[in-house]
Amino acid sequence: MKAYMELIEQLQWRYATKRMNGEKVPKEKLDKILGAIQLSPSSMGFQPYTIYVIENPDTKKEISLKASKQPQITESSHLIVFAAWTNPSLENVDRYMQLIANERSVTLESLAPFRNKIAEELQNKSSEELISWTARQAYIALGTGIAAAALEKVDATPMEGFDSNALDDILGLKEKGLKSVVLLALGYRNQETDPLVSAKKVRRPKEELFVTI
Amino acid sequence: MKAYMELIEQLQWRYATKRMNGEKVPKEKLDKILGAIQLSPSSMGFQPYTIYVIENPDTKKEISLKASKQPQITESSHLIVFAAWTNPSLENVDRYMQLIANERSVTLESLAPFRNKIAEELQNKSSEELISWTARQAYIALGTGIAAAALEKVDATPMEGFDSNALDDILGLKEKGLKSVVLLALGYRNQETDPLVSAKKVRRPKEELFVTI
Repeated sequence: MKAYMELIEQLQWRYATKRMNGEKVPKEKLDKILGAIQLSPSSMGFQPYTIYVIENPDTKKEISLKASKQPQITESSHLIVFAAWTNPSLENVDRYMQLIANERSVTLESLAPFRNKIAEELQNKSSEELISWTARQAYIALGTGIAAAALEKVDATPMEGFDSNALDDILGLKEKGLKSVVLLALGYRNQETDPLVSAKKVRRPKEELFVTI
Repeated sequence: MKAYMELIEQLQWRYATKRMNGEKVPKEKLDKILGAIQLSPSSMGFQPYTIYVIENPDTKKEISLKASKQPQITESSHLIVFAAWTNPSLENVDRYMQLIANERSVTLESLAPFRNKIAEELQNKSSEELISWTARQAYIALGTGIAAAALEKVDATPMEGFDSNALDDILGLKEKGLKSVVLLALGYRNQETDPLVSAKKVRRPKEELFVTI
Protein backbone atom coordinates (compact mmCIF):
# COMPACT_ATOMS: atom_id res chain seq x y z
CA MET A 1 0.00 0.00 0.00
CA LYS A 2 2.79 2.36 0.96
CA ALA A 3 4.68 1.41 -2.20
CA TYR A 4 1.68 2.11 -4.30
CA MET A 5 1.05 5.53 -2.81
CA GLU A 6 4.66 6.17 -3.61
CA LEU A 7 4.01 5.36 -7.26
CA ILE A 8 1.15 7.87 -7.45
CA GLU A 9 3.21 10.46 -5.58
CA GLN A 10 6.18 9.87 -7.83
CA LEU A 11 4.07 10.03 -10.98
CA GLN A 12 2.88 13.38 -9.68
CA TRP A 13 6.48 14.41 -9.01
CA ARG A 14 7.76 13.46 -12.44
CA TYR A 15 7.22 15.53 -15.56
CA ALA A 16 8.61 15.73 -19.05
CA THR A 17 11.81 17.44 -17.97
CA LYS A 18 12.97 19.88 -20.65
CA ARG A 19 16.35 20.79 -19.20
CA MET A 20 18.60 18.42 -17.30
CA ASN A 21 21.74 19.22 -15.32
CA GLY A 22 24.10 16.53 -16.61
CA GLU A 23 24.28 14.75 -13.25
CA LYS A 24 24.85 11.02 -13.60
CA VAL A 25 22.26 8.42 -12.67
CA PRO A 26 24.09 5.96 -10.37
CA LYS A 27 24.66 2.53 -11.88
CA GLU A 28 22.45 0.74 -9.34
CA LYS A 29 19.51 2.98 -10.15
CA LEU A 30 20.06 2.59 -13.88
CA ASP A 31 20.23 -1.19 -13.47
CA LYS A 32 16.89 -1.18 -11.65
CA ILE A 33 15.21 0.92 -14.34
CA LEU A 34 16.58 -1.40 -17.03
CA GLY A 35 15.53 -4.39 -14.94
CA ALA A 36 11.94 -3.15 -14.92
CA ILE A 37 12.09 -2.57 -18.68
CA GLN A 38 13.36 -6.13 -19.12
CA LEU A 39 10.41 -7.44 -17.08
CA SER A 40 7.88 -5.41 -19.08
CA PRO A 41 5.20 -7.56 -20.71
CA SER A 42 4.80 -7.74 -24.49
CA SER A 43 2.50 -9.51 -26.89
CA MET A 44 3.12 -13.24 -26.52
CA GLY A 45 6.20 -12.37 -24.46
CA PHE A 46 8.11 -11.84 -27.70
CA GLN A 47 9.86 -8.58 -26.74
CA PRO A 48 10.36 -7.57 -30.39
CA TYR A 49 12.72 -4.67 -29.71
CA THR A 50 16.31 -3.88 -28.82
CA ILE A 51 17.14 -1.13 -26.38
CA TYR A 52 20.17 1.11 -26.73
CA VAL A 53 21.53 2.68 -23.56
CA ILE A 54 23.72 5.59 -24.57
CA GLU A 55 26.05 7.27 -22.12
CA ASN A 56 28.90 8.09 -24.52
CA PRO A 57 29.07 11.90 -24.88
CA ASP A 58 30.36 11.76 -28.46
CA THR A 59 27.43 9.62 -29.59
CA LYS A 60 24.98 11.90 -27.79
CA LYS A 61 26.63 14.91 -29.42
CA GLU A 62 26.27 13.36 -32.86
CA ILE A 63 22.60 12.56 -32.16
CA SER A 64 22.11 16.13 -31.00
CA LEU A 65 23.67 17.48 -34.21
CA LYS A 66 21.93 15.20 -36.67
CA ALA A 67 18.74 13.77 -35.19
CA SER A 68 17.32 15.98 -32.44
CA LYS A 69 18.03 19.43 -31.12
CA GLN A 70 16.25 18.77 -27.84
CA PRO A 71 18.66 19.71 -25.02
CA GLN A 72 17.94 16.54 -23.03
CA ILE A 73 19.93 14.55 -25.59
CA THR A 74 23.21 15.94 -24.29
CA GLU A 75 22.08 17.05 -20.82
CA SER A 76 20.76 13.62 -19.87
CA SER A 77 22.78 11.08 -17.96
CA HIS A 78 21.69 8.23 -20.22
CA LEU A 79 19.69 8.32 -23.41
CA ILE A 80 17.55 5.22 -23.93
CA VAL A 81 16.64 4.43 -27.54
CA PHE A 82 13.75 2.00 -28.03
CA ALA A 83 14.41 0.31 -31.38
CA ALA A 84 11.56 -1.87 -32.65
CA TRP A 85 12.24 -4.88 -34.85
CA THR A 86 11.15 -3.98 -38.36
CA ASN A 87 10.81 -7.51 -39.63
CA PRO A 88 10.83 -10.21 -36.93
CA SER A 89 11.82 -13.51 -38.53
CA LEU A 90 11.15 -17.17 -37.88
CA GLU A 91 14.71 -17.28 -36.61
CA ASN A 92 13.67 -14.79 -33.91
CA VAL A 93 10.70 -17.01 -33.08
CA ASP A 94 12.89 -20.13 -32.85
CA ARG A 95 15.35 -18.31 -30.66
CA TYR A 96 12.47 -17.35 -28.36
CA MET A 97 11.23 -20.95 -28.28
CA GLN A 98 14.74 -22.13 -27.35
CA LEU A 99 14.81 -19.58 -24.54
CA ILE A 100 11.47 -20.83 -23.18
CA ALA A 101 12.58 -24.46 -23.52
CA ASN A 102 15.75 -23.73 -21.56
CA GLU A 103 14.12 -21.60 -18.86
CA ARG A 104 11.14 -23.87 -18.26
CA SER A 105 12.87 -27.20 -18.97
CA VAL A 106 10.31 -28.19 -21.59
CA THR A 107 10.84 -29.66 -25.04
CA LEU A 108 10.73 -27.65 -28.25
CA GLU A 109 8.11 -30.14 -29.49
CA SER A 110 5.74 -29.16 -26.69
CA LEU A 111 6.10 -25.52 -27.79
CA ALA A 112 5.19 -26.21 -31.43
CA PRO A 113 1.60 -24.86 -31.16
CA PHE A 114 2.85 -21.63 -29.57
CA ARG A 115 5.62 -21.35 -32.18
CA ASN A 116 3.09 -21.76 -34.97
CA LYS A 117 0.78 -19.19 -33.44
CA ILE A 118 3.52 -16.54 -33.37
CA ALA A 119 4.72 -17.50 -36.86
CA GLU A 120 1.17 -17.11 -38.14
CA GLU A 121 0.83 -13.71 -36.46
CA LEU A 122 3.99 -12.53 -38.20
CA GLN A 123 3.00 -13.91 -41.59
CA ASN A 124 -0.43 -12.30 -41.46
CA LYS A 125 0.98 -8.81 -41.01
CA SER A 126 2.16 -6.40 -43.69
CA SER A 127 5.47 -4.57 -43.19
CA GLU A 128 3.58 -1.54 -41.87
CA GLU A 129 1.54 -3.67 -39.50
CA LEU A 130 4.67 -5.41 -38.24
CA ILE A 131 6.51 -2.22 -37.27
CA SER A 132 3.29 -0.78 -35.85
CA TRP A 133 2.92 -3.88 -33.69
CA THR A 134 6.55 -4.13 -32.55
CA ALA A 135 6.61 -0.38 -31.81
CA ARG A 136 3.56 -0.72 -29.56
CA GLN A 137 5.31 -3.41 -27.55
CA ALA A 138 8.24 -1.04 -27.10
CA TYR A 139 5.85 1.60 -25.78
CA ILE A 140 4.69 -0.76 -23.02
CA ALA A 141 8.34 -1.07 -22.02
CA LEU A 142 8.60 2.72 -22.16
CA GLY A 143 5.66 3.01 -19.75
CA THR A 144 7.22 0.49 -17.37
CA GLY A 145 10.56 2.31 -17.53
CA ILE A 146 8.95 5.66 -16.74
CA ALA A 147 7.19 4.21 -13.68
CA ALA A 148 10.45 2.60 -12.51
CA ALA A 149 12.42 5.83 -13.00
CA ALA A 150 9.79 7.78 -11.06
CA LEU A 151 10.07 5.34 -8.13
CA GLU A 152 13.85 5.81 -8.23
CA LYS A 153 13.37 9.59 -8.23
CA VAL A 154 15.13 9.80 -11.57
CA ASP A 155 13.74 12.23 -14.12
CA ALA A 156 12.67 10.61 -17.35
CA THR A 157 11.56 12.41 -20.50
CA PRO A 158 9.94 10.42 -23.29
CA MET A 159 10.70 11.99 -26.66
CA GLU A 160 9.19 11.39 -30.08
CA GLY A 161 10.08 14.50 -32.05
CA PHE A 162 13.38 13.32 -33.53
CA ASP A 163 14.61 12.35 -36.99
CA SER A 164 14.45 8.58 -36.70
CA ASN A 165 16.16 7.97 -40.04
CA ALA A 166 19.13 10.08 -38.96
CA LEU A 167 19.28 8.32 -35.60
CA ASP A 168 19.05 4.91 -37.29
CA ASP A 169 22.04 5.91 -39.45
CA ILE A 170 24.11 6.97 -36.46
CA LEU A 171 23.46 3.73 -34.59
CA GLY A 172 23.50 1.48 -37.68
CA LEU A 173 19.99 0.24 -36.88
CA LYS A 174 18.59 -0.30 -40.37
CA GLU A 175 21.04 -3.06 -41.28
CA LYS A 176 20.18 -4.79 -38.01
CA GLY A 177 16.45 -4.79 -38.83
CA LEU A 178 15.72 -2.11 -36.23
CA LYS A 179 13.96 1.25 -36.23
CA SER A 180 14.15 3.83 -33.45
CA VAL A 181 10.60 4.61 -32.34
CA VAL A 182 10.87 6.54 -29.09
CA LEU A 183 13.55 7.90 -26.74
CA LEU A 184 13.72 8.18 -22.98
CA ALA A 185 16.18 10.67 -21.52
CA LEU A 186 17.19 9.75 -17.97
CA GLY A 187 18.77 12.29 -15.66
CA TYR A 188 17.98 15.09 -13.27
CA ARG A 189 16.00 18.26 -13.78
CA ASN A 190 17.86 21.56 -13.92
CA GLN A 191 16.06 23.68 -11.37
CA GLU A 192 17.50 26.91 -12.80
CA THR A 193 16.93 26.50 -16.51
CA ASP A 194 13.84 24.33 -16.88
CA PRO A 195 10.80 26.57 -17.40
CA LEU A 196 8.47 23.71 -16.50
CA VAL A 197 10.15 22.80 -13.21
CA SER A 198 7.32 24.16 -11.09
CA ALA A 199 4.44 24.00 -13.58
CA LYS A 200 1.34 22.26 -12.32
CA LYS A 201 0.73 18.87 -13.86
CA VAL A 202 -2.21 18.88 -16.27
CA ARG A 203 -4.22 15.74 -16.91
CA ARG A 204 -7.67 15.20 -18.36
CA PRO A 205 -10.19 14.84 -15.53
CA LYS A 206 -11.25 11.31 -14.68
CA GLU A 207 -14.88 11.96 -15.66
CA GLU A 208 -13.70 12.71 -19.18
CA LEU A 209 -10.87 10.19 -19.51
CA PHE A 210 -12.80 7.19 -18.21
CA VAL A 211 -16.14 5.71 -19.22
CA THR A 212 -17.55 3.24 -16.74
CA ILE A 213 -19.90 0.49 -17.87
CA MET B 1 14.42 1.97 -2.40
CA LYS B 2 12.10 -0.48 -0.71
CA ALA B 3 9.26 0.65 -2.99
CA TYR B 4 11.37 0.10 -6.01
CA MET B 5 12.42 -3.39 -5.01
CA GLU B 6 8.74 -4.02 -4.60
CA LEU B 7 8.14 -2.99 -8.22
CA ILE B 8 10.76 -5.45 -9.49
CA GLU B 9 9.41 -8.16 -7.18
CA GLN B 10 5.85 -7.48 -8.26
CA LEU B 11 6.79 -7.44 -11.95
CA GLN B 12 8.33 -10.86 -11.29
CA TRP B 13 5.15 -11.94 -9.52
CA ARG B 14 2.79 -10.82 -12.26
CA TYR B 15 2.26 -12.73 -15.49
CA ALA B 16 -0.25 -12.76 -18.34
CA THR B 17 -2.91 -14.55 -16.34
CA LYS B 18 -4.91 -16.84 -18.60
CA ARG B 19 -7.62 -17.87 -16.17
CA MET B 20 -9.09 -15.62 -13.50
CA ASN B 21 -11.38 -16.54 -10.63
CA GLY B 22 -14.00 -13.80 -10.90
CA GLU B 23 -13.06 -12.22 -7.58
CA LYS B 24 -13.68 -8.48 -7.51
CA VAL B 25 -10.90 -5.91 -7.34
CA PRO B 26 -11.84 -3.60 -4.45
CA LYS B 27 -12.84 -0.09 -5.49
CA GLU B 28 -9.91 1.58 -3.74
CA LYS B 29 -7.41 -0.59 -5.62
CA LEU B 30 -9.17 0.01 -8.91
CA ASP B 31 -9.16 3.75 -8.27
CA LYS B 32 -5.43 3.67 -7.68
CA ILE B 33 -4.74 1.74 -10.89
CA LEU B 34 -6.92 4.19 -12.83
CA GLY B 35 -5.19 7.06 -11.05
CA ALA B 36 -1.82 5.85 -12.31
CA ILE B 37 -3.23 5.49 -15.82
CA GLN B 38 -4.53 9.04 -15.63
CA LEU B 39 -1.06 10.28 -14.64
CA SER B 40 0.63 8.38 -17.45
CA PRO B 41 2.63 10.63 -19.76
CA SER B 42 1.76 11.01 -23.44
CA SER B 43 3.14 12.93 -26.38
CA MET B 44 2.72 16.65 -25.62
CA GLY B 45 0.50 15.62 -22.70
CA PHE B 46 -2.39 15.27 -25.14
CA GLN B 47 -3.76 11.93 -23.83
CA PRO B 48 -5.46 11.11 -27.15
CA TYR B 49 -7.46 8.17 -25.87
CA THR B 50 -10.56 7.30 -23.88
CA ILE B 51 -10.56 4.42 -21.46
CA TYR B 52 -13.56 2.16 -20.91
CA VAL B 53 -13.79 0.42 -17.56
CA ILE B 54 -16.22 -2.47 -17.92
CA GLU B 55 -17.61 -4.27 -14.94
CA ASN B 56 -21.11 -5.00 -16.29
CA PRO B 57 -21.41 -8.78 -16.78
CA ASP B 58 -23.83 -8.47 -19.71
CA THR B 59 -21.42 -6.25 -21.64
CA LYS B 60 -18.54 -8.59 -20.87
CA LYS B 61 -20.66 -11.51 -22.01
CA GLU B 62 -21.46 -9.79 -25.29
CA ILE B 63 -17.76 -8.99 -25.82
CA SER B 64 -16.94 -12.60 -25.09
CA LEU B 65 -19.48 -13.80 -27.66
CA LYS B 66 -18.64 -11.38 -30.44
CA ALA B 67 -15.14 -9.98 -30.01
CA SER B 68 -12.91 -12.34 -28.02
CA LYS B 69 -13.15 -15.87 -26.74
CA GLN B 70 -10.38 -15.35 -24.20
CA PRO B 71 -11.73 -16.48 -20.81
CA GLN B 72 -10.35 -13.42 -19.00
CA ILE B 73 -13.07 -11.31 -20.62
CA THR B 74 -15.74 -12.80 -18.39
CA GLU B 75 -13.54 -14.10 -15.55
CA SER B 76 -11.95 -10.70 -14.93
CA SER B 77 -13.19 -8.28 -12.31
CA HIS B 78 -12.90 -5.30 -14.66
CA LEU B 79 -12.06 -5.20 -18.32
CA ILE B 80 -10.20 -2.06 -19.37
CA VAL B 81 -10.52 -1.08 -23.02
CA PHE B 82 -7.95 1.41 -24.31
CA ALA B 83 -9.67 3.26 -27.16
CA ALA B 84 -7.40 5.53 -29.19
CA TRP B 85 -8.72 8.66 -30.87
CA THR B 86 -8.88 7.96 -34.59
CA ASN B 87 -8.97 11.55 -35.71
CA PRO B 88 -8.06 14.09 -33.02
CA SER B 89 -9.48 17.47 -34.01
CA LEU B 90 -8.59 21.09 -33.41
CA GLU B 91 -11.53 21.09 -31.02
CA ASN B 92 -9.68 18.47 -28.96
CA VAL B 93 -6.58 20.69 -29.06
CA ASP B 94 -8.52 23.75 -27.94
CA ARG B 95 -10.13 21.80 -25.14
CA TYR B 96 -6.67 20.75 -23.99
CA MET B 97 -5.45 24.36 -24.14
CA GLN B 98 -8.42 25.44 -22.03
CA LEU B 99 -7.57 22.74 -19.49
CA ILE B 100 -3.96 23.95 -19.27
CA ALA B 101 -5.09 27.58 -19.03
CA ASN B 102 -7.43 26.71 -16.15
CA GLU B 103 -5.01 24.47 -14.28
CA ARG B 104 -1.98 26.73 -14.58
CA SER B 105 -3.82 30.06 -14.50
CA VAL B 106 -2.27 31.22 -17.75
CA THR B 107 -3.90 32.86 -20.75
CA LEU B 108 -4.89 31.05 -23.91
CA GLU B 109 -2.82 33.59 -25.83
CA SER B 110 0.33 32.50 -24.03
CA LEU B 111 -0.39 28.93 -25.15
CA ALA B 112 -0.75 29.82 -28.83
CA PRO B 113 2.71 28.51 -29.87
CA PHE B 114 2.02 25.18 -28.12
CA ARG B 115 -1.45 25.01 -29.67
CA ASN B 116 -0.01 25.61 -33.12
CA LYS B 117 2.67 22.96 -32.58
CA ILE B 118 0.09 20.29 -31.76
CA ALA B 119 -2.20 21.42 -34.57
CA GLU B 120 0.72 21.15 -37.00
CA GLU B 121 1.57 17.66 -35.71
CA LEU B 122 -1.99 16.55 -36.36
CA GLN B 123 -2.19 18.13 -39.80
CA ASN B 124 1.08 16.54 -40.92
CA LYS B 125 -0.13 13.03 -40.19
CA SER B 126 -2.16 10.74 -42.47
CA SER B 127 -5.13 8.85 -40.99
CA GLU B 128 -2.94 5.78 -40.53
CA GLU B 129 -0.20 7.80 -38.88
CA LEU B 130 -2.72 9.43 -36.55
CA ILE B 131 -4.15 6.19 -35.20
CA SER B 132 -0.67 4.69 -35.00
CA TRP B 133 0.43 7.69 -32.95
CA THR B 134 -2.61 7.84 -30.65
CA ALA B 135 -2.45 4.05 -30.12
CA ARG B 136 1.17 4.30 -29.01
CA GLN B 137 0.22 6.87 -26.39
CA ALA B 138 -2.42 4.45 -25.11
CA TYR B 139 0.25 1.77 -24.82
CA ILE B 140 2.29 3.98 -22.48
CA ALA B 141 -0.81 4.20 -20.29
CA LEU B 142 -1.14 0.43 -20.55
CA GLY B 143 2.43 0.01 -19.28
CA THR B 144 1.78 2.40 -16.39
CA GLY B 145 -1.43 0.56 -15.51
CA ILE B 146 0.31 -2.80 -15.49
CA ALA B 147 2.99 -1.50 -13.13
CA ALA B 148 0.34 -0.01 -10.85
CA ALA B 149 -1.70 -3.21 -10.81
CA ALA B 150 1.40 -5.24 -9.98
CA LEU B 151 2.13 -2.98 -7.00
CA GLU B 152 -1.47 -3.46 -5.87
CA LYS B 153 -1.06 -7.23 -6.21
CA VAL B 154 -3.82 -7.27 -8.79
CA ASP B 155 -3.39 -9.56 -11.78
CA ALA B 156 -3.45 -7.75 -15.10
CA THR B 157 -3.46 -9.37 -18.52
CA PRO B 158 -2.85 -7.22 -21.58
CA MET B 159 -4.70 -8.62 -24.59
CA GLU B 160 -4.41 -7.81 -28.28
CA GLY B 161 -5.94 -10.82 -30.00
CA PHE B 162 -9.52 -9.60 -30.24
CA ASP B 163 -11.83 -8.44 -33.00
CA SER B 164 -11.55 -4.70 -32.59
CA ASN B 165 -14.28 -3.93 -35.14
CA ALA B 166 -16.74 -6.12 -33.24
CA LEU B 167 -15.72 -4.55 -29.94
CA ASP B 168 -16.04 -1.06 -31.41
CA ASP B 169 -19.59 -1.96 -32.51
CA ILE B 170 -20.57 -3.20 -29.06
CA LEU B 171 -19.28 -0.05 -27.35
CA GLY B 172 -20.34 2.34 -30.13
CA LEU B 173 -16.77 3.57 -30.49
CA LYS B 174 -16.59 4.33 -34.20
CA GLU B 175 -19.18 7.10 -34.09
CA LYS B 176 -17.26 8.66 -31.20
CA GLY B 177 -14.03 8.75 -33.22
CA LEU B 178 -12.51 5.94 -31.17
CA LYS B 179 -10.86 2.60 -31.92
CA SER B 180 -10.15 -0.12 -29.38
CA VAL B 181 -6.44 -0.93 -29.57
CA VAL B 182 -5.62 -3.04 -26.52
CA LEU B 183 -7.38 -4.55 -23.49
CA LEU B 184 -6.30 -5.03 -19.91
CA ALA B 185 -8.15 -7.62 -17.85
CA LEU B 186 -7.91 -6.91 -14.11
CA GLY B 187 -8.66 -9.58 -11.56
CA TYR B 188 -7.13 -12.50 -9.73
CA ARG B 189 -5.46 -15.63 -11.05
CA ASN B 190 -7.30 -18.92 -10.75
CA GLN B 191 -4.74 -21.17 -9.05
CA GLU B 192 -6.62 -24.31 -10.10
CA THR B 193 -7.32 -23.71 -13.76
CA ASP B 194 -4.51 -21.48 -15.02
CA PRO B 195 -1.85 -23.68 -16.63
CA LEU B 196 0.70 -20.85 -16.42
CA VAL B 197 0.19 -20.15 -12.72
CA SER B 198 3.56 -21.59 -11.73
CA ALA B 199 5.44 -21.26 -15.02
CA LYS B 200 8.81 -19.58 -14.78
CA LYS B 201 8.89 -16.09 -16.26
CA VAL B 202 10.86 -15.95 -19.50
CA ARG B 203 12.58 -12.75 -20.59
CA ARG B 204 15.35 -12.10 -23.08
CA PRO B 205 18.68 -11.87 -21.25
CA LYS B 206 19.98 -8.37 -20.61
CA GLU B 207 23.07 -8.94 -22.77
CA GLU B 208 20.79 -9.50 -25.73
CA LEU B 209 18.03 -6.99 -24.97
CA PHE B 210 20.31 -4.05 -24.21
CA VAL B 211 23.13 -2.49 -26.22
CA THR B 212 25.32 -0.14 -24.19
CA ILE B 213 27.18 2.68 -25.92
